[in-house]
Amino acid sequence: MLDRLSLNQITTQGWSLREAVDGCARAGITFIGLWRDRIAEIGPDAAAALVRDAGLGVSSVCRGGFFVTADPAERARRRADNRRAVDETAALGADTLVLVCGGQGDLPLATARDMVSDGIADLAGYAATHGVRLAIEPMHPMYCADRSVIVTLSQALDVAEAFPQEQVGVVIDTFHVWWDPQVQAQIARAAGRIAGFQVCDWLVPLPDVLLGRGLMGDGPIDFPDLLGAVDAAGYDGPIEVEIFNRAIWDRPGDEVVAAVKERFARHVLGRRP
Amino acid sequence: MLDRLSLNQITTQGWSLREAVDGCARAGITFIGLWRDRIAEIGPDAAAALVRDAGLGVSSVCRGGFFVTADPAERARRRADNRRAVDETAALGADTLVLVCGGQGDLPLATARDMVSDGIADLAGYAATHGVRLAIEPMHPMYCADRSVIVTLSQALDVAEAFPQEQVGVVIDTFHVWWDPQVQAQIARAAGRIAGFQVCDWLVPLPDVLLGRGLMGDGPIDFPDLLGAVDAAGYDGPIEVEIFNRAIWDRPGDEVVAAVKERFARHVLGRRP
Repeated sequence: MLDRLSLNQITTQGWSLREAVDGCARAGITFIGLWRDRIAEIGPDAAAALVRDAGLGVSSVCRGGFFVTADPAERARRRADNRRAVDETAALGADTLVLVCGGQGDLPLATARDMVSDGIADLAGYAATHGVRLAIEPMHPMYCADRSVIVTLSQALDVAEAFPQEQVGVVIDTFHVWWDPQVQAQIARAAGRIAGFQVCDWLVPLPDVLLGRGLMGDGPIDFPDLLGAVDAAGYDGPIEVEIFNRAIWDRPGDEVVAAVKERFARHVLGRRP
Repeated sequence: MLDRLSLNQITTQGWSLREAVDGCARAGITFIGLWRDRIAEIGPDAAAALVRDAGLGVSSVCRGGFFVTADPAERARRRADNRRAVDETAALGADTLVLVCGGQGDLPLATARDMVSDGIADLAGYAATHGVRLAIEPMHPMYCADRSVIVTLSQALDVAEAFPQEQVGVVIDTFHVWWDPQVQAQIARAAGRIAGFQVCDWLVPLPDVLLGRGLMGDGPIDFPDLLGAVDAAGYDGPIEVEIFNRAIWDRPGDEVVAAVKERFARHVLGRRP
């Protein structure tokens, strides 16, 4: 029943990549979501070997994007870095690169949003030739100014639909979308475009804008409801548990993984303990 | 050029109601937005006399709502309190009662949203007979769990449109709606339903979920863009400046009012200093 569970590496961020891979193996978890800064610690080839030798699937690589900047030199740097992100994703044998599209910064909001579409248009072909699909992650509106001007699933799909579905999809993270009155309808619309599904809960009251995520069951999110919609839309891939939370990061990794498994079964799959 | 400016009382929360009324008079501000807890300090009749004697218009009274609760006894208490809020609004000669609709709490999100519609249906007739229009305030999605399950202007209009427009409208607060890709289209749709327009900026990075509001110009919000849409939709009423910010609250009231006037002219009306 845990065969779709993927451990996003940020959830056990006290662990090195090797420790996370070993932890998954010990726990019987067969997918892992990787972060580029942790891949960089040992290099993509060594990371690929580690993951392959452990028999793990890579559910996604985080992250490319950050398309919004008024500075041409900075844009060129980011363009090159996004191509490296594609290369690394391909080297890992993964097929999904998550895009955090970039916040508004000092630009007009409409301009920033146009830069996202332009950036994806520039990257999608390169990614496709490397067997990598771009996955736009709509982020919670509270990140609009500084992380992502793409704030709803509807808007992410508007952007994605300009491209073939095998080139550009979306990643749906419960923390970012649960509040949206349109979320069920938009998940249905996303059929064929769902490149990933990520879960964590929303802590109440939100203790911190960045680190206010909790284990499933520690907040109000109805996971079976959202998973049901994602399943009905035809997505049958891995489900990543991705938690940004200082208290969880400070716990021993094996303890966190055990809690993740238990909460995943109970609150995401809806199985009684 | 400041004839539409209204000081929402929370912006100078170190001031009593009398001090706020006097402060508006000194500054040449002709509208004030009132809060029930401050009205309660002297009673609605004394508050009405204060405001009337100063020649101030009351742009809105904050707040009714909080319709979401599973407890029938608590629901009855809130129902009675909402009727008192209507009575107080009418006693003040005001025509707009702002509704903060209530967060999800421990209920399913759909149930909580149904309770909001039911609560408004229960209150709207009573309010209408007292000459008070209910103004649904869609709040930022980061408040969905604990303050308002009504999170977009689109959703607020879906609820409001079940009632005559003179009975139920919406209040548009830039802090809550600026991120929404649909905001321009939904403001146009809101023609005839706009019961209030409130402004403040979004601080970056957001220092606090509740108190992260700033003076206009201290964040990324494009006020002329939103005001232009509101004007085009036919709203020509007061524009409230409503700021929750500890540092601003700690400043002398007259200093805050002077800053509000200057920022309003420059960043909301778009006039050069």
